[in-house]
Amino acid sequence: MKNISELLDLEIPDKELVELILEHPLEDLLDNWDIFSNHHRIAIFRLSDLDTKVNLMTNLPPAAQEDILTFLSVQNTKSLFGEMEPDDVVDFIQAVNAEVRKSVWDSLSDESKKESLFLLRFDEDDAAGLMTPRYLEINVHATCDQALKFIRSHAEEVETIYYAYVLDEFKRLVGILSLKELILTSGDKPVREIMTTNIISVEEDRDQEDVAKVLETYNLLAVPVVNKQNILLGIVTFDDVIDVIREEQTEDVYKMGAMGGSLMPYLNSSILGLIRKRLPWLLVMLVVGAITTNVLDHYTGLFLSAAFLINFIPVITQTGGNTGSQSATLMIRGLATGEIHFRDIWKVLSRELLVGLVMGLIIGLVMVFRSYYLPPAGIEWLQAITIGLSMVFVVTFSTLIGSTAPLLIHKLGFDPAVMSGPLMSTVIDVAGLTIYFEFASRILL
Amino acid sequence: MKNISELLDLEIPDKELVELILEHPLEDLLDNWDIFSNHHRIAIFRLSDLDTKVNLMTNLPPAAQEDILTFLSVQNTKSLFGEMEPDDVVDFIQAVNAEVRKSVWDSLSDESKKESLFLLRFDEDDAAGLMTPRYLEINVHATCDQALKFIRSHAEEVETIYYAYVLDEFKRLVGILSLKELILTSGDKPVREIMTTNIISVEEDRDQEDVAKVLETYNLLAVPVVNKQNILLGIVTFDDVIDVIREEQTEDVYKMGAMGGSLMPYLNSSILGLIRKRLPWLLVMLVVGAITTNVLDHYTGLFLSAAFLINFIPVITQTGGNTGSQSATLMIRGLATGEIHFRDIWKVLSRELLVGLVMGLIIGLVMVFRSYYLPPAGIEWLQAITIGLSMVFVVTFSTLIGSTAPLLIHKLGFDPAVMSGPLMSTVIDVAGLTIYFEFASRILL
Repeated sequence: MKNISELLDLEIPDKELVELILEHPLEDLLDNWDIFSNHHRIAIFRLSDLDTKVNLMTNLPPAAQEDILTFLSVQNTKSLFGEMEPDDVVDFIQAVNAEVRKSVWDSLSDESKKESLFLLRFDEDDAAGLMTPRYLEINVHATCDQALKFIRSHAEEVETIYYAYVLDEFKRLVGILSLKELILTSGDKPVREIMTTNIISVEEDRDQEDVAKVLETYNLLAVPVVNKQNILLGIVTFDDVIDVIREEQTEDVYKMGAMGGSLMPYLNSSILGLIRKRLPWLLVMLVVGAITTNVLDHYTGLFLSAAFLINFIPVITQTGGNTGSQSATLMIRGLATGEIHFRDIWKVLSRELLVGLVMGLIIGLVMVFRSYYLPPAGIEWLQAITIGLSMVFVVTFSTLIGSTAPLLIHKLGFDPAVMSGPLMSTVIDVAGLTIYFEFASRILL
Repeated sequence: MKNISELLDLEIPDKELVELILEHPLEDLLDNWDIFSNHHRIAIFRLSDLDTKVNLMTNLPPAAQEDILTFLSVQNTKSLFGEMEPDDVVDFIQAVNAEVRKSVWDSLSDESKKESLFLLRFDEDDAAGLMTPRYLEINVHATCDQALKFIRSHAEEVETIYYAYVLDEFKRLVGILSLKELILTSGDKPVREIMTTNIISVEEDRDQEDVAKVLETYNLLAVPVVNKQNILLGIVTFDDVIDVIREEQTEDVYKMGAMGGSLMPYLNSSILGLIRKRLPWLLVMLVVGAITTNVLDHYTGLFLSAAFLINFIPVITQTGGNTGSQSATLMIRGLATGEIHFRDIWKVLSRELLVGLVMGLIIGLVMVFRSYYLPPAGIEWLQAITIGLSMVFVVTFSTLIGSTAPLLIHKLGFDPAVMSGPLMSTVIDVAGLTIYFEFASRILL
C-alpha cells in the first residue's frame, strides 16, 4: 500500500484521494495531518465515523482542533462532544481560544454542562483534575443480580464498566466491585460479600504524578478519587494516567534542556512564546556563569607567563560539565522514580568518589599523552602532566558536585531538574578553572 | 499515622513492628524497602497476602527480588510464580542471576514452563516481547451465550477478560469481542454479529514504542499481537505499555545526560558498570572537544595583545552550549512525540533564526553593559561592544545548529538524542570561539 505522502503526490481527484487516505490507520492520519490541505482535513474529518472523529479530536494539537471546529456545523459539534468523555471535554475547553470555547459550550447538552462545571472547579494537575464523573455506583445493599442489571442498563453512559463503586447511604466509598467477580457470581448474594473492601483510592488534591504511581503499582484500570470524608467524586482511568506520564516526561526533558516546562507543541508555539520560555534561563545562566570571567581575570599574570594554558580552558570546563551532568542525570532520574532518597547521600558520595577517581585517572592519562604528542606542538612533559593532573581533580570534583547538588536541592524542597543545571555548571566551571590554575601556578612557576 | 521511618525509630518488638508496617500502603513499603533490615523484609513478605507478594515482587529492583527468593521455600515460590503473569515471569527470569533463575525455573508448573519458553523466543523490545499468551479466544461460530459461558469458566486463567479474541479455524484473528458488548447482548445471537471487525492489532516485530503509541491513540486496554499470517500470538496489556513508556523515558533522559541507556537502577549498579556506561561518552566528547585547543592556539597572538578576551572564553562557550541544547531538546522531543518531521526543516530554521536573533540581541546587550560596568575593570566601550556583538552571532548560530543537527541525524537514521550532544557541543564551541576571535581581531587590531 502506498503511504500517505506518496498518495498526495499522485494528484488524483480529491474525492478518491480522501477515500484512499481514510484506508490508513489513525496514527498515520495524525502523523501526516500537517501536510494535508485544509480542504482535505475537513473532508477526512467529515467522512470518518464518530469513533475516529473523537480519536482525531482528542489526539490533534489545539490549533488543528480549532481549525476543524470552525468548519463543523452545530449539529456535528453536538454529536462529537456528546461522545467525548467529560474530562476530555474539559481539557479541550481549557485549551482552545475563547471564540471556539463559546461555540463548544453552546453545543454541550445540559448534562454535559453540569459535569463540565463540576470538573472545572478542580486544579488541572491534581487527581480531581484528571477524573471523570461517569462511573458506576452501586448501593451497598444491592444483590449481585441487581448490580449486574444496573450495569447493563448504564453501560453506555460510563467511561468503564469493568469496575463498579459501592457506596453507603452517605455516598462514602465502601467497596469496589469488579465486573469479573460479578459475572462469576450470580443470584441474590449481596454485593458486599464479593466486593473488595481493601480499597486503593486517592484524595482529590493528590498530585497527578502520585496518581500515576498508584495506578501503576497496583496495575489498576482506574483509581477512585475521594474527598476528605471518603465521598466518591470520580474515577481516573488508565488512559488519562498515560497522558500524565507523557506530559511529565516532556516537562522533565524540557527542564533538563534548561527551559520552562510549558507543554505547547513546538510548531504551534508563537515566536514570542518560545523566547519567553527560553530567554530567562539563558540570562540566569549568563549572570551566574559570568563569575568565570572574574576567576580568569585573577590569573591573567599566569597566562602571560604560560600562554599554552589558555588553549585547554574549554576542554577543562567541558569535561567537568559533562561529568557533572552525568552524575546529576542519574540522581534526578533516581529521585524521580523513587529509587534514590536523601538518606542515601553517603552511599552515593562514596560511589561517585570511586567512579570519579577511576574515570579521572583514565581521562587524565589520555590528556597527558594527547597534550604531549598531538598539536599544538611545544608542550613539555611537565606541562602535559599539569594538564592531566588537573583533569583528575576536575572530574572527581564534578562527580561529587553533580551528585550532591540534586540531592540537596531536592531535600530543600526545590525541583532538582530545574535548579541543578545552571547552579551546578557554574560551580563546576569556577571550581574547575581554579583547580587548573592553582595546579599550574604551583607546578610551573 | 506514624510514617515508616518513624516506626523504625520506635524500636518496638519485631513482630509488632512488622504488623504496624504492613498497615501502610504498598507504595510506602516499596519506597522504604532499602531501610528495612533483611530480617524485616522477609517477615513483611511472609505476612503479606498473595496479591501483595506479587505486587512487591514485580515492583522491587532485581537485587531485592533475588534476596527474597533466596529465603523463600520451594512451596512459596511455586504459589508466587503461579500467580504472576507469564510475561512478568519471563522478564523476571531474564533479570535475575543464574542461580536464582534455576530455582525459579524449577518451581514453575509445566504449563508455565511451556508459556515461558514460547515467550523467550521473542525479542524483548518487540511487541511479542511484551505480550502474554493468556487471553480469551472464541471460535467465530460461537453464540453470545456460549462465549459468555466460556469467559466465565476461563476468567481465572487469563490476564484480562474484558476483551475476547475471535479466531477462525486457522487461528487467524477475525474479530474482537468486548465484554461490554457481550453483557448487553444475550441469547443465541452469533458473536460474529456483535464483534468488532475493524481490528487494531500490531505485528510481532513491531517496536515496543510503536505498540505504546497504538494503545494510547485508540485508548485500548490491550492490543493483540499477530504474525504475518494474521495468526494471534498474544496480547499486550496497558500495564506493560506503561512500563515501556517509563523505560523509554529513562533511556531518553540518560542519553540527554550523555550516558549509555542501560536501565539498571543506580544503587544496584556496580562501580565498574557505572564507569563502563559513562567513560566512553566522556572520552568521545574529550577527543572531539579537544579541537578547541587547536582553535585557541591559532589565536595566541591575539590574546597576547588583548588579554581581556581570555576572560570571556567560558561565558561565550557556555551560552552557545546552553542555547544550542535548548533548540536540540525541542527538536529531540518533537521528533520523539511525532510532532516534528524532517520535512518541517525550513519552518524550523526560520523560527529558530528569529528566536536566535531576538535572544542574541538581548543577551548581547546585557553582555555589553556587564563587561563595561562590572568587574574585572578596565574594559573599554569598543571592547565591550566586541564581546556583545560576538554573543549575538554565537547565540543565533547555536539555535540554528542546535535545531538542524538533530533533524539531520534523525533523517540519517541515527538516534538524535545520542548523537546530538557531543557533536553539537563541539561544533558550537569551535564555531563560537572562531566567531568571537574573528570579530575581536577585526574590530580591535
